[in-house]
Amino acid sequence: MSKKKRILSGMRPTGPLHLGNLQGALANWVTMQDDYECFFFIADWHALTTDYENTDSVSDYVKNVMLDWLSAGLSPEKSTLFVQSHIKEHAELFLLLSMITPVPWLERNPTYKDQIVQLNNKDLSTFGFLGYPVLQAADIIMYKADGVPVGMDQIPHVELTREIARRFNHFYGKVFPEPDAILTKTSKILGLDRRKMSKSYNNAIFLSDTVEDIAAKVSQMITDPQRARKSDPGNPDVCNVFDFHNLYSSPETVAEINEQCRAAQIGCVECKKIMGQHLISALEPVREKRKYYEDNPKLVADIIVTGGSKARSVAQQTMEEVRSAMKI
Amino acid sequence: MSKKKRILSGMRPTGPLHLGNLQGALANWVTMQDDYECFFFIADWHALTTDYENTDSVSDYVKNVMLDWLSAGLSPEKSTLFVQSHIKEHAELFLLLSMITPVPWLERNPTYKDQIVQLNNKDLSTFGFLGYPVLQAADIIMYKADGVPVGMDQIPHVELTREIARRFNHFYGKVFPEPDAILTKTSKILGLDRRKMSKSYNNAIFLSDTVEDIAAKVSQMITDPQRARKSDPGNPDVCNVFDFHNLYSSPETVAEINEQCRAAQIGCVECKKIMGQHLISALEPVREKRKYYEDNPKLVADIIVTGGSKARSVAQQTMEEVRSAMKI
Ligand code: SF4
Ligand code: SF4
Repeated sequence: MSKKKRILSGMRPTGPLHLGNLQGALANWVTMQDDYECFFFIADWHALTTDYENTDSVSDYVKNVMLDWLSAGLSPEKSTLFVQSHIKEHAELFLLLSMITPVPWLERNPTYKDQIVQLNNKDLSTFGFLGYPVLQAADIIMYKADGVPVGMDQIPHVELTREIARRFNHFYGKVFPEPDAILTKTSKILGLDRRKMSKSYNNAIFLSDTVEDIAAKVSQMITDPQRARKSDPGNPDVCNVFDFHNLYSSPETVAEINEQCRAAQIGCVECKKIMGQHLISALEPVREKRKYYEDNPKLVADIIVTGGSKARSVAQQTMEEVRSAMKI
Repeated sequence: MSKKKRILSGMRPTGPLHLGNLQGALANWVTMQDDYECFFFIADWHALTTDYENTDSVSDYVKNVMLDWLSAGLSPEKSTLFVQSHIKEHAELFLLLSMITPVPWLERNPTYKDQIVQLNNKDLSTFGFLGYPVLQAADIIMYKADGVPVGMDQIPHVELTREIARRFNHFYGKVFPEPDAILTKTSKILGLDRRKMSKSYNNAIFLSDTVEDIAAKVSQMITDPQRARKSDPGNPDVCNVFDFHNLYSSPETVAEINEQCRAAQIGCVECKKIMGQHLISALEPVREKRKYYEDNPKLVADIIVTGGSKARSVAQQTMEEVRSAMKI
C-alpha cells in the first residue's frame, strides 16, 4: 500500500455556499477524500484581501462555511479541516516568503489584473491584495502538499507557488516539494437568471436552503429564452434548467425531457417541478447532515479545534525546518 | 509620579556594532532608559529585506548585537530587550496591516527609492522589501509605543506608521495610538578614511575592538588632508580626529588641541595618540561589560528569553484587541 498523496485547498468565507461552489469545488473535494490525504482550510485571512473595510461578518461566515462543508460531506475523520487564521505559522511563512518574492512576479499574475478590473468598486491597490499569491504559496507549501485541486483559472497561481518554492529551495536548500496543479472536473452551473451563480447577484441556490426555498427558487428559473409558450418547441441545449437536470436527474429523465421539450410535449413549469424534486432529493443528505451539526454546535467547535491542532502540528514542523534552513 | 512614556526602537543585525552606531543611536537609547519605558529589539526579519540571499550569519549577528547592546549599557533590568523573530505576533500583525496599506504609500517612501539606488548590486524588487515599512509599523504599534527615537531620515517612516495606525483605527475602531517621532541628537562620526563609518568600508572602530585594535586603527586615521607635515598649521574644523576629540576628550584637551594644531605645535601622530587614549578609556566600561557577558553566555541567553517573554505578553494582549476589533 503506497502512501496517499497530500492535497490542500481552501475557500474564502465570503458567505453561504451555493450549488456553484458545490459543483465547482466541494463535490470534488468530497470525492478526493478517499484517494488523498486532504487538508482543507477556510481562508479567512484571504477574505481580507478584498473585504478589509468591513469585517463584521467574517467570523459568522467562517462558522457557516464549516457547516456547509460538513453538510456537503467533508469529513473530519478523513480530512484535516481548519481555519487559516488559527494557524499563525501561515503569517510567519508569508513574511519569510515575501522576502524572496519579486514584485514583478506578482504584478504579472493574471488574476490580479482581472480582479482589479472586476472589483472596480473596491480599492484593491493594497499591499495585501498584491501579495495574496504569496500568502497562498505559504498556505500550500506549509503542508508540503503534492497537489492542489484547481480549476483552469487557478493554474497560474499554482505555477507561482511552484516558482516561490523553487526559489526558496535554491537559496536555502531543499525544504519544499513543488505542488502539482490537479485539474478537477467542474460542472458549469448558472444562477437562476442565467448569470454566474453568486450570492451578490441574488441568483443562488444555497446548500442551506430549505425545501421550500429551493422549490420557490427553481420556479423562478429562466428557461430557454426563445420559448414563449408551452406550444413552442424548446431547446434544452440553451436551457439552464436542463443543465440542472443533467446534474440532478437520472439519465432516463434527462433523455425524456430532452425529447419532450423539443417536441413541445412538456411545459417549462412542469419541467422545473420535476427538476426541483430531483434537486431537493439530491440535497436531502446535505440538509440532514446540516441539521445534525446545527443541533450540535459544540461538535462543530470541536471539529474546528481538532482540525486546527492537526494542521498546527504539521505547520510547526515545517516552520522548524524553514528556520533551520534559513538559519534564522 | 506620572507613568513613563513608552518608546520602541530596533536595529538590524548586519554585523558588529561600531562607534557610528553607538553615537548615532545606542548612546541615546542608554540615556533614554531612565526616562522612558523602553522596548529595544533586534530586527532579524528586517535584515532579510536586503540580505535574503545569504542568511548564514544572521543568528551570529543577533547574538553579537545583544552583546554589543549589553556592553554599551542597555540594561535588561530597565528595558525590554528582545529578538523580533521570537515574537511571531509581529508576522500576524504585518499580515493584517498589509491588507489595509495602499501600495502607493509604500512606493512613495523616500528611503525605499534611496535604497534601491544605493544598493544597486542587490535585487531589491522583492515584495518584502517594498513592504518593510508595514513590518516596521507592526513592530511599533504592537507595543502601542508613544514615541520612536529616530534620526531625521527616519521621520517619513514614523509618519507612515502613524498613517497605517490611523487607517486601522478608522476601519476597526481605536486600538492604536499614533506614535510620535522623537528626534534624537546624534553625533556625526566618520570612519578612519573620512567616509561614513561602515563595516563594509572596512573603516570602522567596533565596540568589540581590543585596546590594541583601537590604537592601531586610530593611528591609521586620516587627519586634515591639507596638512602635509608637522610644521604646517592644521585645521581641526576639517579633521576627523578632532571630531573624535570632541566626543571622547575633556573640554580642556579639546581647547588645547585646537590651539596647538592651528599653531603647528602638535603633530598628528601625537594628537591621535592622545585621542586614542581617551577613546580607549571611554570604551573601558564597554569592554568590561562585554567580558562579563562573554564569560556568562548562559546569562545572555536568559536575557534574550526573558525579554522575549515580556515582549510576547504585551504583543499577545495587543493581538487579542486587534482580532476582536477586526472580528476575525
Ligand atoms: S421544458 Fe425544461 S428543458 Fe425545455 S425549455 Fe422548459 S425548462 Fe428548459
Ligand atoms: S593635530 Fe590633531 S586636530 Fe590637528 S590635524 Fe592633526 S590630528 Fe587633526
